[in-house]
Formats: sequence, C-alpha cells, structure tokens
Amino acid sequence: MRRETDSMGEISVADDKYWGAQTERSRHNFPIGVERFKFTRPIIRALGILKKSAAKANAELGELDKQLANLIVTAADEVIAGKLDEHFPLVVFQTGSGTQSNMNANEVISNRAIELAGGTLGSKNPVHPNDHVNRGQSSNDTFPTAMYIAVSEEVLHKLIPAVQILRDTLATKSQQYSELVKVGRTHLQDATPITLGQEISAWVAQIDSALENIKISAKQTTELAIGGTAVGTGLNAHPQFGDLAAKYITQETGIEFNSAANKFFALSAHDALVNVSASLRTLAGALMKMANDVRWLASGPRCGIGEILIPENEPGSSIMPGKVNPTQCEAMTMVCVQVYGNDAAVAFAGSQGNFQLNVYKPVMVHNVLESIQLLSDTCLAFNEHCAVGIEPHYPVIEANLAKNLMLVTALNRYIGYDKAAAIAKKAHKEGLSLKDSAIKLGYVTEDEYSKWVNPLEMTHA
Amino acid sequence: MRRETDSMGEISVADDKYWGAQTERSRHNFPIGVERFKFTRPIIRALGILKKSAAKANAELGELDKQLANLIVTAADEVIAGKLDEHFPLVVFQTGSGTQSNMNANEVISNRAIELAGGTLGSKNPVHPNDHVNRGQSSNDTFPTAMYIAVSEEVLHKLIPAVQILRDTLATKSQQYSELVKVGRTHLQDATPITLGQEISAWVAQIDSALENIKISAKQTTELAIGGTAVGTGLNAHPQFGDLAAKYITQETGIEFNSAANKFFALSAHDALVNVSASLRTLAGALMKMANDVRWLASGPRCGIGEILIPENEPGSSIMPGKVNPTQCEAMTMVCVQVYGNDAAVAFAGSQGNFQLNVYKPVMVHNVLESIQLLSDTCLAFNEHCAVGIEPHYPVIEANLAKNLMLVTALNRYIGYDKAAAIAKKAHKEGLSLKDSAIKLGYVTEDEYSKWVNPLEMTHA
Amino acid sequence: MRRETDSMGEISVADDKYWGAQTERSRHNFPIGVERFKFTRPIIRALGILKKSAAKANAELGELDKQLANLIVTAADEVIAGKLDEHFPLVVFQTGSGTQSNMNANEVISNRAIELAGGTLGSKNPVHPNDHVNRGQSSNDTFPTAMYIAVSEEVLHKLIPAVQILRDTLATKSQQYSELVKVGRTHLQDATPITLGQEISAWVAQIDSALENIKISAKQTTELAIGGTAVGTGLNAHPQFGDLAAKYITQETGIEFNSAANKFFALSAHDALVNVSASLRTLAGALMKMANDVRWLASGPRCGIGEILIPENEPGSSIMPGKVNPTQCEAMTMVCVQVYGNDAAVAFAGSQGNFQLNVYKPVMVHNVLESIQLLSDTCLAFNEHCAVGIEPHYPVIEANLAKNLMLVTALNRYIGYDKAAAIAKKAHKEGLSLKDSAIKLGYVTEDEYSKWVNPLEMTHA
Amino acid sequence: MRRETDSMGEISVADDKYWGAQTERSRHNFPIGVERFKFTRPIIRALGILKKSAAKANAELGELDKQLANLIVTAADEVIAGKLDEHFPLVVFQTGSGTQSNMNANEVISNRAIELAGGTLGSKNPVHPNDHVNRGQSSNDTFPTAMYIAVSEEVLHKLIPAVQILRDTLATKSQQYSELVKVGRTHLQDATPITLGQEISAWVAQIDSALENIKISAKQTTELAIGGTAVGTGLNAHPQFGDLAAKYITQETGIEFNSAANKFFALSAHDALVNVSASLRTLAGALMKMANDVRWLASGPRCGIGEILIPENEPGSSIMPGKVNPTQCEAMTMVCVQVYGNDAAVAFAGSQGNFQLNVYKPVMVHNVLESIQLLSDTCLAFNEHCAVGIEPHYPVIEANLAKNLMLVTALNRYIGYDKAAAIAKKAHKEGLSLKDSAIKLGYVTEDEYSKWVNPLEMTHA
Repeated sequence: MRRETDSMGEISVADDKYWGAQTERSRHNFPIGVERFKFTRPIIRALGILKKSAAKANAELGELDKQLANLIVTAADEVIAGKLDEHFPLVVFQTGSGTQSNMNANEVISNRAIELAGGTLGSKNPVHPNDHVNRGQSSNDTFPTAMYIAVSEEVLHKLIPAVQILRDTLATKSQQYSELVKVGRTHLQDATPITLGQEISAWVAQIDSALENIKISAKQTTELAIGGTAVGTGLNAHPQFGDLAAKYITQETGIEFNSAANKFFALSAHDALVNVSASLRTLAGALMKMANDVRWLASGPRCGIGEILIPENEPGSSIMPGKVNPTQCEAMTMVCVQVYGNDAAVAFAGSQGNFQLNVYKPVMVHNVLESIQLLSDTCLAFNEHCAVGIEPHYPVIEANLAKNLMLVTALNRYIGYDKAAAIAKKAHKEGLSLKDSAIKLGYVTEDEYSKWVNPLEMTHA
Repeated sequence: MRRETDSMGEISVADDKYWGAQTERSRHNFPIGVERFKFTRPIIRALGILKKSAAKANAELGELDKQLANLIVTAADEVIAGKLDEHFPLVVFQTGSGTQSNMNANEVISNRAIELAGGTLGSKNPVHPNDHVNRGQSSNDTFPTAMYIAVSEEVLHKLIPAVQILRDTLATKSQQYSELVKVGRTHLQDATPITLGQEISAWVAQIDSALENIKISAKQTTELAIGGTAVGTGLNAHPQFGDLAAKYITQETGIEFNSAANKFFALSAHDALVNVSASLRTLAGALMKMANDVRWLASGPRCGIGEILIPENEPGSSIMPGKVNPTQCEAMTMVCVQVYGNDAAVAFAGSQGNFQLNVYKPVMVHNVLESIQLLSDTCLAFNEHCAVGIEPHYPVIEANLAKNLMLVTALNRYIGYDKAAAIAKKAHKEGLSLKDSAIKLGYVTEDEYSKWVNPLEMTHA
Repeated sequence: MRRETDSMGEISVADDKYWGAQTERSRHNFPIGVERFKFTRPIIRALGILKKSAAKANAELGELDKQLANLIVTAADEVIAGKLDEHFPLVVFQTGSGTQSNMNANEVISNRAIELAGGTLGSKNPVHPNDHVNRGQSSNDTFPTAMYIAVSEEVLHKLIPAVQILRDTLATKSQQYSELVKVGRTHLQDATPITLGQEISAWVAQIDSALENIKISAKQTTELAIGGTAVGTGLNAHPQFGDLAAKYITQETGIEFNSAANKFFALSAHDALVNVSASLRTLAGALMKMANDVRWLASGPRCGIGEILIPENEPGSSIMPGKVNPTQCEAMTMVCVQVYGNDAAVAFAGSQGNFQLNVYKPVMVHNVLESIQLLSDTCLAFNEHCAVGIEPHYPVIEANLAKNLMLVTALNRYIGYDKAAAIAKKAHKEGLSLKDSAIKLGYVTEDEYSKWVNPLEMTHA
Repeated sequence: MRRETDSMGEISVADDKYWGAQTERSRHNFPIGVERFKFTRPIIRALGILKKSAAKANAELGELDKQLANLIVTAADEVIAGKLDEHFPLVVFQTGSGTQSNMNANEVISNRAIELAGGTLGSKNPVHPNDHVNRGQSSNDTFPTAMYIAVSEEVLHKLIPAVQILRDTLATKSQQYSELVKVGRTHLQDATPITLGQEISAWVAQIDSALENIKISAKQTTELAIGGTAVGTGLNAHPQFGDLAAKYITQETGIEFNSAANKFFALSAHDALVNVSASLRTLAGALMKMANDVRWLASGPRCGIGEILIPENEPGSSIMPGKVNPTQCEAMTMVCVQVYGNDAAVAFAGSQGNFQLNVYKPVMVHNVLESIQLLSDTCLAFNEHCAVGIEPHYPVIEANLAKNLMLVTALNRYIGYDKAAAIAKKAHKEGLSLKDSAIKLGYVTEDEYSKWVNPLEMTHA
C-alpha cells in the first residue's frame, strides 16, 4: 500500500494500482452495484482519447510543458488501448457529474506518466492529476465529452454495422421471395394477398428508417462540452482549447467532433443522449415488431400459423420432448423491453438538471451504452441463428392462400363493395370456397372470377 | 358581469356564475388543454363532500357559526349532487397544489350560500370563501383529501363493479368449457393439452389477482391529509378537526376514511396514488394478455388459429368486404397502453415533491381517474360486445388437438425423455402422426399408446 | 330517425346527423371515455383534406366521375372548414385501424354530398361512402395518412410558433442580462460565476435544439401511407393514385407531402409518430429544466435563492395570506410529466404491430396531438404570465456573488489547485471572505487577489 | 473437452465445467450482454433450493429412487452454498422461459451427482438431468418458482434490512430535532413554520409506507408455479408434488411458500413481479424526494438554502478547489431513475404473455433483482456517508425563520385572511419585518403580535 493525497487528506491505495486518493475514496463511498455497474471499455477508452487530445491541445497552446504533455499522451495511449482497464474500478452510481471517473483518469494517467518519467507514484510530480492532466478542464466538461465520444464510437462502430448485417440478410430474403404470394393479415385476420418478399420488405424499411434516425441523433453527440470547464464559461481554459481539443479528438477517432456552440447547454443538459436513447427505442420497437412477426409466422409446428420455418437451435423444453422454440425472437424481444426501460431512465434523468449542471450523467451514458451493446449483440445473434435460416413453408403458404376469403376484394371494382361483401359472408357462413359462393350468388361467372381474382396480380409485386 | 375581489384586487366575473376572483384569474392564466382537461364529476363531487364535512366538523367544534355552517352544507350538497358542475371551469394544468380548484369550491359554495341567505354575490358576506368555507383548511390538505375521496369512490363504485362483470362472464365460460380439451401453447408453439376452461381460468385468476391488488392499494387512499392545513402542522385548525372531518366524510360516502397519521407525508407525497396507479397498470397488463389471447385464438377466419369465435359487431374493413375484426380487443389493448402511459406520468410526478409539498397533485389525480374511467368503460364494452359471445370453434379445436405432437410428453414417464423426443422429431420430420411414429420406432405398442396418451387425462381437468 | 345500412344490415340514425350505419354502430359499441376522447379538429380536418384530395386524384385518373368528385370535394371542404364537426362523434378507443373514423368521414361526406345533389340521406346514391368517397382507399392507408397530416399541421402551425414565442422572450432576456454577473451553481452548490444572460442562454439553446429535433422528426410524418390500401400492395387503387393524392394534399396544406416509398412499412408501423413523440418528450424535458430553474431562482421570497423575480398572478394560498407561488412553472412541469406519460403510451403502442397492420393507430395519434396541444398552450401561458416578467433581483444577486467561495478557481492558474483548495476550505471553516483567507495563508497578496479574481472576467462574457 | 449430448445431438464442453449440452448451446447462441447480464447468486441459489426441494418431494412421493435423490440433494446443496457459481455461465437474454438456465441447473447437478457417485460426466448415468433432476418439472414451472424464491429472499434478507437502517437513522434525527423550529416551504416558497423533526418525519413516514407496500407485494411472490409443469396442468408430476416441493422450499428458506392456486396464471403471467417492481418504484420515488430535500437543504454553502450540513466525503470538483458536493444524494437519485427504468421494462414485459406462457421471464426477474440490489446498496451507502452526519446549520435556520413572512398565517384567526394578506404584502413590498408591517397597518398591537405569532406553537410540535 502507498499513501495518496487529495484536498481531503491522505488515504491508502494498493501498490499495484495507478489510481489515487479520489478514486480510492469513491470505491469506499459508493459500493453500489459493484458487480455489474463498473464503467467498461467504451468510457475508459473515451477518457483516454479525451485526456490525450487535451494534452496535445494544451501543449500546442503553450498551456502545458511539451515534455509533460508527451508523458500524458503516452500514458493516455495505454488507456485508449485498454492496457489499464483494471485501474478503472469505479461504478456508475457515484457523483452525478462523473467527477470521480474523470479524476480516476487523471490519477491513473498522472501516476503512469510519473512512472514513465521515473518518479514516485502518488507524488504528483512531475505530472499533477489536476494541474496537468486536467489542465483547462473540469469534470463538468470532460465527462460529458467522454460520454459523447463513447456513444458516437459505439453507435458508429458497433451498433450500425451489427444492425446492418441483419438488415442485409432480411433484404436478401425479401428479394428472394419477392413473388411468393401468401395471405396478408390485418387485425390478425386474413386479408388481401401479399408476397413474402413484400412482408419482409416492411421489416427492412422499418429497420432502415430506424437506422437513419439513429444516425441523425448520434450526430448530435459530436457537439462536445470540452472548453466549457466548470460552468460553461471556459474559465481557466485557453479560449481556443475547446476547438483544438475537438480537433485532436476528431483525429484520434476519425469522427468529426466539434466544440459545442453553447457550453452552458452542453453541461446542464444532455438532450443528445436523450435523443439517441429515443432512437434506440424506436429501433427496439422495430425489432420487436419483426421478431414477433417471425415467431408468429413460424408458430406451430402444426397448430399455429406455420408459414415460415426457422432454425432449430436448442431443445425447447425440459419436459416436452422434441419441442423447438423461437428462442432468438425471445431473446431479442427481451432486449427490446430492456431498451425501453433503459430509455425511460435516460429520459427521466435528462429532465432533472438544475442550473449549470445535470448530475445524472453517469446513469444516462450507462443506459445508452448498455442499450447499444444489447441491440448490437441481439442483432448479430438473431441474424446468425435465425434470420439467415428463415425459409418459406410452402405447403402451408399455398393452402392458406387458397382458402383466403379476402381475395374477394379484387371484385370491388367490378361489382361494388356491397355485393362483394355478400359473397364473402356467404362463403364464410356456409364453408364454401369464394368462387363457389360468387357463382352461386350469380354476381360473377366462373370465367370472370378466374380473370379478376389473381392473387399474384393483386399484390402488384 | 359583477366585480369579485381577492388579495390581488378586483376582477370581473360573469353574473350567471358562482365562482369568484381566484377562479376567474385561473381561467385567464391557464388556458391549457381547456377542451379536454377540465376536472369532472368525481373531483367536483369530492370537493363538495369535503367542504360539507369540514363545515359540520367546524360547527361541532365551535369553530364556525352553526347557521353559516348550515348554509355551507346546503350549498355543498348541491355541489355533491352535480347541480353546480358548470361553475367548475378549471383545468388540470393550474397551480400544482390544486389551490385554484379548492378556491373554486370555496367561492362557489360561498356565493351560493350567500345567495341562499339573500346576500350579494361577491360580498363574501355572510359566508366568506376563506374564513368560513375554507375554515381550518388549506389547499394543501383539502385538495389531496378531495383527490383521495374521488379515487376511493371511483375505484369502489365504478372500476371494481365493471371489472367484476367481465370477470364473472369469463368465470362462467371457464366453468362451461372445463372439459373441452384443446392444444396448449407455450412460446407460441404447440404444447401439451389443456381445456378451454383451464385456459380461460388463467384470465380469471389474473384479473382476480389484479382486483385484489387494486383493493389493497385503494385502501391507502383512505388516509386523508385533512387536518394538516398549510404544511402538515395543522396550524389554524382545531386539533380534532381532521379526525372529525374524516368521520363526516365516512358518513357521507359510506367508505371508511381516516385522518392520516403523518400529515407532513400526506402533503408532500401521494404514494397512495402512485400505488393505485401501479395497480391499475397491473390490471391493464392482465387485460392486455387476455385481449391478446382472445384475438389470437379468434384469428382467421381461415388462415389463423381460429379456435374460438367472437361476435361480429361491425364491418371490419372499408375495402375488404365481409371482413370482421376483433375490435373490442383492439379498443381494450389501446386503453391498456394509455393506462401504462398515464401511470408513467403519475409515477414521475410522484417523485417530484420538494420539502412540504408535492406540486403535481392535479396531474396525478387526473391520470388516475382517467385510467379508472377507461378501464371501467372498456371492461363493460368488452364484456357486452365480446366476452359474452365467445364460443369454441369445435372443428378447429378438434383438428388441432389431433395433430398436436406434444401429446408425446405423456410417454416421458414410461419410456424417458430421450426416446419420447425421438418419436416427436420423427413425426415432425416425416409428417407422421405421433402414434405412427411411436410404433414405427418400436418404443411403444399401439395399445400402450392408446392407454398412455389420453388428452383429457393429460389436462388433469 | 332514418334507417342506414352497411354490410351488417340496418340501423337507426338521428335525422339531423350525416353519419351512417358504421358510425352509429361504433357509438354503441365503444362508449369508452366519451367525455374526453372524441377526436377533435386536427383529425377531422385532416380526414377532410384527405377525402378531398383523394376525390380529385381519382377524378384526374378517370377512376371517379367528375361530377361525383365535385360533390365530394364540396362536402369535404365543409369538413375541412369545421362546419361538420358535430357529425364526428367517435372516440379514440374504437377499432385500432381507425376504420370507424374513416367510415365516419366517408359516411358524412357521402350523405352531405347526396344532400347537395338533392338525393336521400342513407341512400348511398349518387355518392356511395365506400365505392366513391373511399375509392382506391382502405382505412389502413387513409387513417394513417390523416394522422400524419394532422400531426404535421399541428407541429408546424401550432407547436413551433408557440414555443418560438417563449424562446424569443428568453433570448431577449439573455441579451439584456448578458453582463449581469451572478453566482453559478453546480450540484446545487455555489460554483464559479456566470452572467444571468449566460444562464438564460442555456435554456434558449436547449429549446432551440429541441425545436430542431422536432422539425426533423416531424418531417418523417410527411411520408404518407396513401396508395397502399388494405395491406400495402395498393390493390384497387390506380398505380398513380398515391402520388397524386399526396400532391393534392400538399396543395391543400402548403406542406410538402409524399407517398411513402414502402407502403407495407407505412401501414404496419408508425415510427414517425414514435419519433415525433420522443422529440416532444425531449422538448418537455427542456421545459422542465427551464421551469425548475425559474422557480428555484425565484424561490423565497426571503428564505430561498431569490435571485430573480417573477410575476405575481394569483393569490398563492387559501390559508397563507400574501403568498405567491410559481404557478406557471407548476402548470408547465405538470404538462411535462403528462407528455412523458403520453410518450410512453405512444412508444408502447408503436411496438405492438402484427403482420401488415399496427392496430394502435388512434391511441398513438391521440397522444401525440394531445402533447402538441398541451406543450403549445403551456408555452404561451408561461410566456405571457411568467417569462416576459422575469427580472433580476439585484440585491440578492450581488450579495450572493460577493460571498461565493468558488471565485477561488481563478487562482488555480497562478498558485495551483492544491493551494487554492486550502484557501477556500479555510474561508469556509472560519467564515472568512475568500480574500482574507487567501492573504492570511500568504498564497497571494491583496493586489494579486484583486487583479486575478475578477468575476466578470471569469465569465468570459 | 468432453462430449455432451441432448436431443439435438452432440457438442463439446470444457472438461472442468459441469454444465452439459444445452448450457453449451445457449452460450454459443446467446452472446448477448455477456459482460453484465449473467445470472448471479440469488437466481443460482434459488435454482439449487428448488432442485433440492423437488428431489426430496419426489423421493417422498415414490417418484424418485431415494439414493438418486440423495445424490441430487448433495449436489444441489453445493449450488445453494455458492460453490458451483462458475458453472452457471448463462445470461438473461436467452430463451424467454428460462429453459436454458433450468437445464443448466439440471445439467450441473446431474454431472456433479454423477461425479459424487463415481460415474462419467455427460453419461447421464446414474443421474439424468431431465428424468431425475427435472423429475415432475418443466422449465415453465421451475424457472418462475426460482424467480419468486430469489425475489422473496432478496426483498426480505437484503432490501428491507438495508432500507430499515437508513429509516432508523432518519427516525432518530427526527426525534432529536423534534422542537427545532425552521421555515416550512411549499411551492419552494416560504411557508408557515415546521420543526426539523417534523420535516424529517415526512421522509420516515414515506419510507415506512413504501416498506409496508413492498412487504405486501413481496408476499405475492410466495405463490409458486411449481407443480404446474409444462402448461399448468401438472402433467407428469405427482398430484401432491407442488405442495410438497413448496413445503421443502419453505423449510430451506424459512419463508412461507405455497403452491399457487391457479397454475395456468402462474405460468402465463408474473404480476407478482410487476407488483414488486412497482413497489420498488414507489420506494425509489420516496428516496428521490428525500435525497432531493437533503441536497436542497444542504445547498450552498453560502448562496443556497444551507439549513443543514452534510458530511464532506470527497473533493467535489477537479477544477473548483474546496468544493464539496452532495454526492450520496446524486448516487441515490441516479439509482432511483434506474429503478424507474427497470420497472418500465418489467411492466412492459409483464403484459406480453401469450396463451400458456409469458416468455419474458428472465428479463423480468433480472430487473427486479437489480433494482433490489441497487436500492439496498444506495440506502446503506447513503446512511453511512450522509444520513448519519446530517446536522442542523443553526445560524441559517434561525435567520431564515426570523424573516419568514408566512408567520402571518397565525393572525388569520384573529383578524381574518384579508387583513393578514395585507400585512404580508406590505412587508414584502417595503422590506419590513412582519411585526412592523402589522403594527404600521394598525391591525394588531405589538403585544398581540408577540402573543399570537409564536413559531414553535405554530408547529403544534
């Protein structure tokens, strides 16, 4: 153990850990959800990117000795690369500004830089966690900056590619079955025909729309708080610091970031996260619709709708032998309700800012990142273990189509709605085929019926 | 127009209205959602009950001249009876303590009492809205008291009877079909058999459980804030006023009310409403499950599950002739999502109190009352136009049962899970009946199969 | 009373009403929330616009006799103008496709057109509700089209102007007090200084951001389902009908509408509404933050923060004489929690589509329109009765600024974080002024302190 | 690696793990949220308790060889004790019935029992995972049984004691300051006086009410699904199995459990979890109110309300030296919004059952357990690091009380509301003390004022 200090005094820290006094205090003071709520890679990496970029900006602006800056950059690179993850032990439920995670980064980078320089851990010499690593910064602008970097990266590099893979699989299926006619369903009731390709195209279009929406909202997370320092005024930061730091963050990530136009807003609210969360919720809603359609279409095998087949991945039941269940749909819809719940937390938190700060930052970014992770994971799993294996169950599709009473709709144009309704009702009541009912009622001839009622044509496919 | 006054000064009020200056100000200052958000009967009636009971309590305690009290009681009786509803023009989105609705009641009762006494409207003589009608009260204790009276009455007199009617219809159906065997379904997949009566009994049990839960939470709304006055200390109220007022409220409503043990809590939070709202949400969830089951079981008529028939109430489609839809299920499930939304508003509002007052009172009670109304209405409509007409569709039920592979489960006990699984899988793959597959595999004889696989026995009905 | 018919048979309808059999059936079958849940102007108007545009498109495409089309257009114009609102009695909680409201429009327009043509109400001659008014349409594409028209119009013509007025008032205040220095606050604790103008600018920027976001999401509601008919295939509609109808809708509204690229998605999900709802929620969150800041800054008058003054609009208390409360803030924050609740209902409903149709359409559009109405109303009321009257309370602002310990932050750059912390802590513990503490500790001279600690400069205003 | 088999065939499993084929398949098929969503102690322990109790019940009923039962009991005891946690690798987002976690338990116990018996892992001999460990059970009844055992234990043994500790600390503070008079606040505005003890008593009463509510709802989780097997009929289970298993579970846990009256409901819905979740939400709302009150009362140190002092635990700011923040309040309120979010997920999931099964079981129990954990942790941390250290800040309390205008309310009884209002308004406008204003207006004499306006008496403490 070694002694570390902060403005509260001394405290003991394990020798093999780079963190300092404030991180240690936070560990003791916030043993809340420790098992599951430690910040993970995306936030740690983002803090590294931020601290590196800040050091470079400060050095360029003459606010920081170049040699110290280099030490900070080297240590921050290790944070970025994930080499120091074990030195970030703090959880979500800490101070609401994320101050302690910002200080965790400052302390780890300071101590690792000191070590690189041959100094003594905890000495704050030659690299001081506040005066050098946190130079021109406050938790109030750095933590939201790290939040936005993390969310931007995760949306672009994890979520969108994962969803896109599933989307492409579905688009291929849609193409493949573009002319396979089947019964349509509205209100769960038999409706006019549709092709399987058209049915799947609705899922694709909905996912595309959700992705588009995510991209738009994620763009809002590229407006960074950095440069605002404590309350948004930029006190103690060089006037160009925010812009320059954003430039280096852009360089580091390949994503176009900017220093936010109004820093007071950037600290006191995180509506960009609320909006990203909402757009993830919309994606979740789209996936829920799709997954529900898939499992209903695959229901049976004998007493359900049974128009498609999906892969059999696991024994479905510990008691019913041979049962196979739509488990990927179930995992996905469970993710969806979780994303809805996470979003409710984010939006609630987003409304609770006061004056110059919203102090629900950690819980907001946590939920957004978790939703991203879960949606990405479930899309990949669903794609591999379900979507790629979706096949039409031809015998059922054909049988259902043949008996569908709503083919009668094609007759509206020729005999009017009221007579068409009479045909359908008679068929329904007497268990007749539609054609028989139509002819019995004398509203159409057999030839007319055959000419006018053509399921594939009815789909306009 | 006549002039009315309050501590802000004078203001003109229409001659044919009993309300006074503060009500008039509120009308001008809060033109928010006027079309849909005026307080309705339950709250107006509850304010009347409260003011009447308060007058009687004050008179008994010597805090109010008996003659004035009688005038107030007479006027309040008219409020209770609904004769003065048009004199309550205020909306939900006013001051968060409901002060203006409390003053609305004070003013209307004062002016009507003055009129009864032959005085001049607006003169506050002989009955003053604050000094007499509001004697020993504050909006901070009266409005929550009125909220709880209203919710208690609506739960007991509107919601529970309405839900009970639907529940009883379903219970009767459950009895009626207690031995009608059909396929069970888990994961939307065919499962071991069940009777239709058992299937319906799950809905009944879930509704019963929800009702029980509602009764428990509604009990919490019988703890009244009355007697707490401005901040919970009871300043300016006679020490026995709260208890006595609660006694008269009990007398008036036939519901056992009490003065809350801790008045500070009674003003600063309304967790009883949050809990009632949550219990309404649980009921909504139960109804959603039931309504979804009904529409899926009734899906088709030819290409769905189609195991039950439900009443055909309206033409289902403006384009598809003869189509009939499960519209009562749709109205009910729409009510359910609305109740979920209302509950989210209530719970959010419930968390936002500060110090001695929660100032989201009107929006909380509004949403609870709206949920009660909608749930009551939809249960009655669903009962009359759907539930009473639910019938088994015997041909489909029988056909599905016959082909259900999960009957194999009955063999577990005799030949073990693994061999039973092999039978089901072979049948599934080769399109065989279960019996044929079992015999072909040589795991059972025909006699054994017939003896061991008995659907009705499998249900333990 | 006259007899009206539909495919279910005959039913009596009041003679002075234009609606027909299906509307009448819906009234009987769905007595749910009748007092508060009838569709209002925006939806009725949108149905009129749709039916007019459809008639013009059909006429142009040779699908509808020009004379009949003219009759329909004339009747629809009356619907648009609000002359027939009393003939639209249906509520939200009906069939989930809105079929009955679509038929209500068909029936009213048909009967009014028949009347204009000198025919007999209920005769369907010469204008048939299905064959002519609903020509080339299904409820499944018309109702969502009307929903999107209504939401587009309400966002553009009601919500945005109302919010903009409040936003502009705040922006003017922000300009006006751009150099009025006061204490900043983070974590509710005293922080480095800020100007009142900067503080208000955060509200303006947050509202601007919310408005921008609303515009983007509202744009999605310009992609119309029209042309998809029953299941999205466009069966029974002329291939150009959707595009042409959208063109006429654009003409009628002045808003650029299009026929949606994928009609299957347009019927089976309404993610545009989910997204609009989410963007309204973000606005609600922004308003909640602002309204909370206002009431806290105005808290007191003597024992709170008290740095601003707001208009005194009503007596605040029925028991505490002379009390004035931040009632506009309370009404606004109650609207905000309602919008959150409404949004939860919309998002839940949005996830519940099956196959070719989402049958939660009415409840989705209802909640979105209600949120628009409430947000618009509360912004106007708040603006007029609160925002325009916000004034700095100079004595308190100055006194607070003078004693704020966080001015010490300006010293970081000169003496380092650790010494600056010591100064603040000593001042805090001993009740000293910051300057006295700094000098006593010997870390700065009086001259240095005066030069380095300059509140206005610290704000970078 | 060894080969394990199930009805799907063979699969390789690591030699040092007890799990079998189905667990292995689940690991491959559901790599969703692996880092954070593995089931933890409470569920693993509950599965152990269940399997032990089932084995004992089966043995007693003659359904299972006693020697095999003993082997199962021994292995299950190791699961209960936490010795085999590493053999439970599965995550929440799997099949929605929890089948794979049930099979995980079956497989681990079977293999460990085989090992104890000297057999070969994976041989299913002498202890078969389905035929013996899962005897008379289905995932559909075992998993919900384990869910309820886990929630019951966690509520009783973790949550309630933790909350109680905080509650008791507050109750002690309430007693301690029962006569310390201070200003009350309603609408954030100065109101009539209250004692600090009364103010704190509201928190205590609200927490007590929330705890009471939690106990009632948790009681519902003692009704177990066990005995229902696949669809609720109890197929393949001895008729007394459910009751007997519940008896052994009671024995094992010391909590009174029963076999549910209606097993169809017990499988198809988990309203008990929805209700527990709602009651946790109410607790979260109560804690949010309390934590917000604490941080506002402690706001400052010089420019806020500042009436109480709370412990200074960490440096509050990386940029503002000497700043101390109400971090425990922030962590707690972040937990509260998380609990709200978790609850939204639970309630959504709870509504989505179909037919005989709700397939959102894992996500429901996960969120309930997480909320329990977080609430417990935050209460303990808040208690230790904040609540125990709350102290009145006497100088501010006294100064605020002295200048509070709402003391005027005491005069209502003597001079009426209207004159009292005039006194307060004059004092407010002219910056007078209340007494001076009262005397200047001539409404009371100095003696009367002193006699009638007695803050401590006004509190009725």
